[in-house]
Parts: sequence; structure tokens; C-alpha cells
Amino acid sequence: MLPQPTVEQALAAFTLPEKLGFGRISAPVMFSATYEKGEWSEGRLIPFGPIELMPNARSIQFAESVFEGMKAYRVPPARPHLFRPLDNAGRFARSATRVGMPAVPESLFLAGLDAVASACADFIPTRSGSSLYLRPTLFSTEGGYDVVNSGAFRFLVLASPSEPYSSGPMRVRIERDDVRAARGGVGAAKTGGNYAAAMRATTRAVADGCTVSLWLDPQQRQTIEELSGMNIFAVIDGEIHTPVLSDSILPGITRDSVLRLAAHSGYRTVERPMPIAELLADIAANRCSELFASGTAAIINPIESLLDADGRQHRPGASAVALRLRQSLLDIQEGRAQDPFGWIHRL
Amino acid sequence: MLPQPTVEQALAAFTLPEKLGFGRISAPVMFSATYEKGEWSEGRLIPFGPIELMPNARSIQFAESVFEGMKAYRVPPARPHLFRPLDNAGRFARSATRVGMPAVPESLFLAGLDAVASACADFIPTRSGSSLYLRPTLFSTEGGYDVVNSGAFRFLVLASPSEPYSSGPMRVRIERDDVRAARGGVGAAKTGGNYAAAMRATTRAVADGCTVSLWLDPQQRQTIEELSGMNIFAVIDGEIHTPVLSDSILPGITRDSVLRLAAHSGYRTVERPMPIAELLADIAANRCSELFASGTAAIINPIESLLDADGRQHRPGASAVALRLRQSLLDIQEGRAQDPFGWIHRL
Repeated sequence: MLPQPTVEQALAAFTLPEKLGFGRISAPVMFSATYEKGEWSEGRLIPFGPIELMPNARSIQFAESVFEGMKAYRVPPARPHLFRPLDNAGRFARSATRVGMPAVPESLFLAGLDAVASACADFIPTRSGSSLYLRPTLFSTEGGYDVVNSGAFRFLVLASPSEPYSSGPMRVRIERDDVRAARGGVGAAKTGGNYAAAMRATTRAVADGCTVSLWLDPQQRQTIEELSGMNIFAVIDGEIHTPVLSDSILPGITRDSVLRLAAHSGYRTVERPMPIAELLADIAANRCSELFASGTAAIINPIESLLDADGRQHRPGASAVALRLRQSLLDIQEGRAQDPFGWIHRL
Repeated sequence: MLPQPTVEQALAAFTLPEKLGFGRISAPVMFSATYEKGEWSEGRLIPFGPIELMPNARSIQFAESVFEGMKAYRVPPARPHLFRPLDNAGRFARSATRVGMPAVPESLFLAGLDAVASACADFIPTRSGSSLYLRPTLFSTEGGYDVVNSGAFRFLVLASPSEPYSSGPMRVRIERDDVRAARGGVGAAKTGGNYAAAMRATTRAVADGCTVSLWLDPQQRQTIEELSGMNIFAVIDGEIHTPVLSDSILPGITRDSVLRLAAHSGYRTVERPMPIAELLADIAANRCSELFASGTAAIINPIESLLDADGRQHRPGASAVALRLRQSLLDIQEGRAQDPFGWIHRL
């Protein structure tokens, strides 16, 4: 292994590329803390680079890992700010608890975000929709082949200067065969296994000219749940509908922001079980005028079509509500509008 | 990082401890191959030790990993032999396919097992029930935050000189709340996420004086499925019953061996949906005389009691059938008996 650069050298050597994409460019530094014998270390900034891990670590063997996704925004001349970081801290802790891992204390979580976002402040892209994507990750470092929780963990905050996840209206494939998460399972936790379970379906979606899968409920495969890594909304008779949360749906922070922002903007919002058959009928009857996705990576993104297993495309057509909500959300996130919700966290 | 020893140095420096346990002692070498641009490297033996991995690798972030568990036995003066390795190779490939990863070719899989078992031949414990536990592991090394399969992977064969997983009759806790795997999900694949999903339940089981959880079906939570990492059997009216396989049950190779060995020994075997209520009634009525677990790690192990959520213990009492089948299986695995099934694979 080559000698590691210092944090200062890593930062000095980094230049922001012209083309970013989403999550493709790694920031030059990361925050690292460890957990052993029931105690968290203080944590410190280190250069981004390969980590050493025992190959029998339960994180690799048994997917004992959880993560978060969030963003830091730069509005010169102010310091970077974060969007709803305490909500991410809370969900990160709930995810860890669901799989029996120790929660990262909120103060350590915030210290990691602050350290990385502050060090990378000059690399945060400022074009609207772009940001510093932050990826807190907690995984076990203890080796073992028995199906029990480990006693040693590592907490990293990774970062990536990024453009939005999607660059235009998305085509979505309805997944009628595979199931992402069980009721009573870990689908509401941001733990790796939910995402591995979704990968084969993504490949099918991409093969069919789509970006992502729409998951149906695991019991009957009749009601819609979420997209892989995003929540879904439908504008029906001018109201904004989204699947009611269950323990097989990831409770998106952007999902919650959409509901609050929409209500604030005068829309009626409805959280309810949403049968796929009814949704397709509503699209056919022009009652459902548009569909959109929400997520930290995707922000708010129009869905152009739903592709079903029978090859039929269902196209709601409009995207005005999604684009309006997207703009309102970005205006708050990027500091152009008042923040009536207390979502912005200044570092 | 300290300079790595050579394979020869690592082997020369290793001595087998007196107390082994299961999976606690790592063999001094491992087999490593990589996959890039659609091609597998040749693979080679390297010293066991920490690996370097990018912290944004999808194996850590999204649990893009699968593994196998199997054993090499030493029957001096012969070379080590393996038990049903082609079945493990096939399941390893099916697990990878289920989560969209490239399958490891059978020849590379066998080359890895051969290299590790041969190099460690002198360290394979010979006491009956002990063996060299082999752990083929496939995980992605490519970084990325989009929920798609990676293009770069690493295949390792790890090993551990081990005693049996359990040293006596097991106490099992019926898990009535959490669910391990969805129908239509990845429960039949040996992929990390299924195991992370089971960890909180293990903690509860251990807190209640048990070893492991008994999982119920994800739809109704009425029929029994498997234990975490083991299949389950019941002796009912002298017949050997086990839950019929579904896509939320791991198709154990030891499970299959038990069914074939039992039939060969004159037992009637029954694979069927097994309601938990009926099983508990059968125990109370003394129709179910014994329960046992099967698995590579556990071999065949009696279950002494089932603890239910209401605090009641259900004790079938007997263990004669389990112990007889265990002995028959070990006699074949350890070379003392004829192998009418073609299960033994000599290296």
C-alpha cells in the first residue's frame, strides 16, 4: 500500500470535475469513528481511500450495515447547510436498532457531517439541484460466522459532490414478480439487504428501457409501496396521494417534506393503501394526471410512464405539480426562500 | 500496514489451538480471485488477513454479497475430502443470480476449495464432528450509490478449523414478531441481508435463554419455516417431517441429506406446510416425539425445547432419531461408512 496523504494534502490535490453525475465523484476526505467494548471513539477526518476490513467481518458476510443519504448545500457566502439532519440522525438510529446494531449518537453523527461538509465546502457544486451528497455508513468490523450482532463497528461519513440522481422524467417498471421487503421485516430500515434484494429487478427495468422498479406489497402484490430508493406520489383529482407507510416501506425524509410542503401550498394530501389496479384505472380515466418520485438523491422527479408486465405503458402525461413542488423544495434547500418548517440546519 | 507474510510463512507460523469453537479460528490462508469486465482472474492462495475495500463499495453499502458454508474432512492417511461440493457450487451460483451478481464458475469454485483445503490439510481437526469449515464468499468491490449491480467483484474462500456449531441440545425461541424473508424475496438465497434481518431476533432468543429463532411464514405467520442458518425437522408418529421448501426458506444441503439418509434408513419422510399451532399440539399429545435442526455448521442437532411468546416451553423429550441420523451422516462425512449417495468428493 502506498503511504496515505494527509487530510490537507488530499484536500489540496482535489479539483472538482466539470461533469459530476450522482455519487460518481468521491470527496477527498471522510469522517471515521469506531465502536468497541460499548464505547464510541471520538472520530476524525481522514483521507478518502480504501479501508482495511477482515474478510470474515459480519458486514460482508451477513450484511450487518446501515446507511443514510443526505445533502449539504452551499449558498455563498454562507457556510454549507444541511437539510433536516436530525431526521436523518433519528432514522439512522432506528435502522441500526432494527438490525440490532448500536445507534450512532446524534452528536457524533452531526460532528461527522459537520467535519466533512466544512472540509469540502469549496467543492460543493452550486448549480441548482447539485450539492454535496453525504453518506453516513455504519458497518461491523468483527469477524464471525454465527448469526449474532457484532461487538465492533465503524462509522464513516462519505461524501460525493453530485448532480441530481435523475436528469429528466423517469420511466418506471412495475415489478410483479420479485418482492423487496417482508411485512415484519427490515424494509423500513436503511440496511443494505433491502437494496441487494432490489438489484435483479433494476436490471430487468433497465433492460426494458426504464430506470427503476415500482414495488408492490409483499402480501398480495396489489398495493404500491415504493421505488428502489425513492417514494412515489400520484396527483389524483388534484389531490396528492402516496402509499401509507408500513414496515415494508422506507419512510423517506423527502417524502415527508413533500407532504408538508404540498399541504402548506394548499394541496390536499392523502396517505392510504393504493391498489395498483386502481392507479392504472385512474391514469386511464385521466383522474390521475401525474406521478412523481421523491428521495434525497432524486429530489422530486416526474415519472413519465409506468411499464407493466403485459408490456402496456401507462402515461399520466402531466408534471406541473411535481415541478412546482420540486422548485419550492429546492428554493428552501438552496436558501432562496424562507424556511417555514425549520428544515435548514446551519453548520 | 505491515509487510504481508508469504503463504508459506503464514502456514508455517500457524498452530492449531486446543480449543476451537465454531468459526472462531481463522485458517492462515485464503483463496482469492477477482472479476472485472466480465472476466474472472485465475485465483490464488494468499495469507489470511485484512482486505482493502473502498468504503463506498456496494457490498458494504447495499449488501451485494453471497456466501456458502461447507466442510472439508480429514481421514488420515487420505487427503482431505469435501461433502457435496457441487451442490454448494450450484447454490452459490443460484444465490448470486438471485441478486443479479455473476456466478462463480464451478471450476473456479472447486479450485478455491481444493487450494485452501489442501494447504490446510495438516490443520484439519480429526475429532468426530470437527472439520475445516470453508466459507466461499462473493462480494462487490465497485463503489456506487445507485441501486444497480456492480461490475467488479471478489471471490474468496475463507476457512476455519472448527468444532460443531452446537455442543448439546438446543433451545429455540419461536419468533412471532419479526419476519426473516418475504415470499418473492431473497430468503432462498444465501445472501447477507437475510442474516442481518435475523440478528435482532437472535438477541431476543439469547436473552430468553435460547440459541436461535424459529421463523414463521411471512404471509400469515402460521407455518414454520426455518431456524436462522438451519432447517428444522420433527419426528411425528415415527415419520420425519420438515417444512416444504418455498422461496423464503434456505434449501439446506444438510436438509436434503437428512431426507435422503432418513428414507434410506427406512423412515417415511414428509415435506409439507407445517402450522406451528399443529406442531405444538402434536408435542402436547406426544405425537411429536422429537425436533431437530440440520445445517452444515450444526450437522444434525437435537432441539430440546421451543419457547413461545407466551412464555410456555414445549418439550418433545426424545432425541434418538436425530442422534442416529447424525451418526450416520458423520460416518459418511468422516469416511467410516460406505457412501451410497456419491456425496464424498475427494480432492
